[in-house]
Amino acid sequence: MVDVPQLVEQAREGRPRAVARLISLVEGAAPELREVMATLAPLTGNAYVVGLTGSPGVGKSTTTSALVTAYRKAGKRVGVLAVDPSSPFSGGALLGDRVRMSDHASDPGVYIRSMATRGHLGGLAWAAPQAIRVLDAAGCDIVLVETVGVGQSEVEIASQADTSVVLLAPGMGDGIQAAKAGILEIGDVYVVNKADRDGADATARELNHMLGLGESRAPGDWRPPIVKTVAARSEGVDEVVEALEKHRAWMEEHGVLSARRRARAAREVETIAVTALRERIGDLSGDRRLDALAERIVVGETDPYRAADELVEGLTNGG
Amino acid sequence: MVDVPQLVEQAREGRPRAVARLISLVEGAAPELREVMATLAPLTGNAYVVGLTGSPGVGKSTTTSALVTAYRKAGKRVGVLAVDPSSPFSGGALLGDRVRMSDHASDPGVYIRSMATRGHLGGLAWAAPQAIRVLDAAGCDIVLVETVGVGQSEVEIASQADTSVVLLAPGMGDGIQAAKAGILEIGDVYVVNKADRDGADATARELNHMLGLGESRAPGDWRPPIVKTVAARSEGVDEVVEALEKHRAWMEEHGVLSARRRARAAREVETIAVTALRERIGDLSGDRRLDALAERIVVGETDPYRAADELVEGLTNGG
Repeated sequence: MVDVPQLVEQAREGRPRAVARLISLVEGAAPELREVMATLAPLTGNAYVVGLTGSPGVGKSTTTSALVTAYRKAGKRVGVLAVDPSSPFSGGALLGDRVRMSDHASDPGVYIRSMATRGHLGGLAWAAPQAIRVLDAAGCDIVLVETVGVGQSEVEIASQADTSVVLLAPGMGDGIQAAKAGILEIGDVYVVNKADRDGADATARELNHMLGLGESRAPGDWRPPIVKTVAARSEGVDEVVEALEKHRAWMEEHGVLSARRRARAAREVETIAVTALRERIGDLSGDRRLDALAERIVVGETDPYRAADELVEGLTNGG
Repeated sequence: MVDVPQLVEQAREGRPRAVARLISLVEGAAPELREVMATLAPLTGNAYVVGLTGSPGVGKSTTTSALVTAYRKAGKRVGVLAVDPSSPFSGGALLGDRVRMSDHASDPGVYIRSMATRGHLGGLAWAAPQAIRVLDAAGCDIVLVETVGVGQSEVEIASQADTSVVLLAPGMGDGIQAAKAGILEIGDVYVVNKADRDGADATARELNHMLGLGESRAPGDWRPPIVKTVAARSEGVDEVVEALEKHRAWMEEHGVLSARRRARAAREVETIAVTALRERIGDLSGDRRLDALAERIVVGETDPYRAADELVEGLTNGG
């Protein structure tokens, strides 16, 4: 039996093992999941969540690590969630990439967590927000969510962030890749990393063009900045932090931050509710009611739609 | 306003336009969908559904056409549903492939329908059974469901059939493709088409090996036959029909046919029920209740799981 309140207390005192344990509980849909979430709820809402996304090889881990250093210098507690939707492995999956993170391994103000399981709702996109809540409740001021892998899952996970950073690097055909993955629609801040390489200016120009940054915008609209960095030498990293702060200030000023968080919470509730309802129906598989309805369809006594109505009525009147 | 009973009556009299209209209604989730399904229900259950699946180029259309000819000779009324999950277009999408079907275009005992829309439940797998019911109620003895495209949708659609035929052709690396797509698990009858080509025997042997047909089976188990055909010359087609009849007889004898149909109906009811519940939740988007719950999560007053409980309770107590 897990003592959840004690574990939460320990996590808030800054014990990394307690934080890790809580994340494992929510990630693995432990029986304690609901108790954990209920206990965490009043302690959340303080962390600012920054998503980092981009194709493999653009330097996400290096950039994340440099951002951690910058935030630590400013006295912030930082959580890092590294998500790899393409990996079937949990925990150790990102070890190669995590080597750079070892700079921070002994820093008690930094939590680093890799996530590669699919989560209890069948998608990382729904396991990640629970892990973010743990890091939030544990007192992190900033949570950096770094997504390895590409495509839809990446976009979904990025949508969990308050501010999304899209990373590119010169000469990787990133423009096209970005457009394909739809990540051009999700960036609040763009970073062209490895800016000491040939083609960095061209990449920035192409991006500028694709984003339509040259066009006029309505006053008050957010204009995503493009920051050039050499993360391996920490060049430009302060400018990224500055861009993040600006975006945060803009969001707060325009009521966008709370609107984003509400929309995110609503989607999350919806997914959990649908899953719960689906499970209620799933519980009926092999149940006489569903079997009987199926039999009546086969013999033509009813049709699937009327049968579904009956099933739903049965469920919604106490199951 | 559509006069559904009249339309159904006309379909049963053999008017192709009425059949086509009914399929359009169920495919497009017309307001009349429920009335159509309710009216059709007592008229269904007579048609035998044969699914044909396989990689592009194995000769599915030619085989389907040859089977239509064979069944017509035996005096059966035949429906053909050609499904292309990969196509964003409806109706005309399969025109190229359908040319061979023009042999049957003037035969009043044959209905041919292409289906490429995604259906009202977001998947062809759920639009197809409704169209099959229309063809069934219209008096078809046999409904051939031919799926173009590959992968999961194909397997799903094949699962709508009473008997599934998996087609292969020599020299196409079909063995590997088949294994990848999981279609080796769904075949009740295997056809190696284009058997006049080099490598037909090797393909059949490989298939025999992969299916473990050399191994002993429990008495009464179905052993999928492998039939070699040259569909373009109608060679071997009678043997396919014979294999289908044998499988049908085996399924009836062992109670498998009704079990399959019940399982199929149960899955269908489940999907419709989940969709209905999801729509009820969807109706709440922008609704004050979901918004209020989301706001309470953001400020830490509740967590997503308790909020989902509240939402579900709200829905299940009359919405």
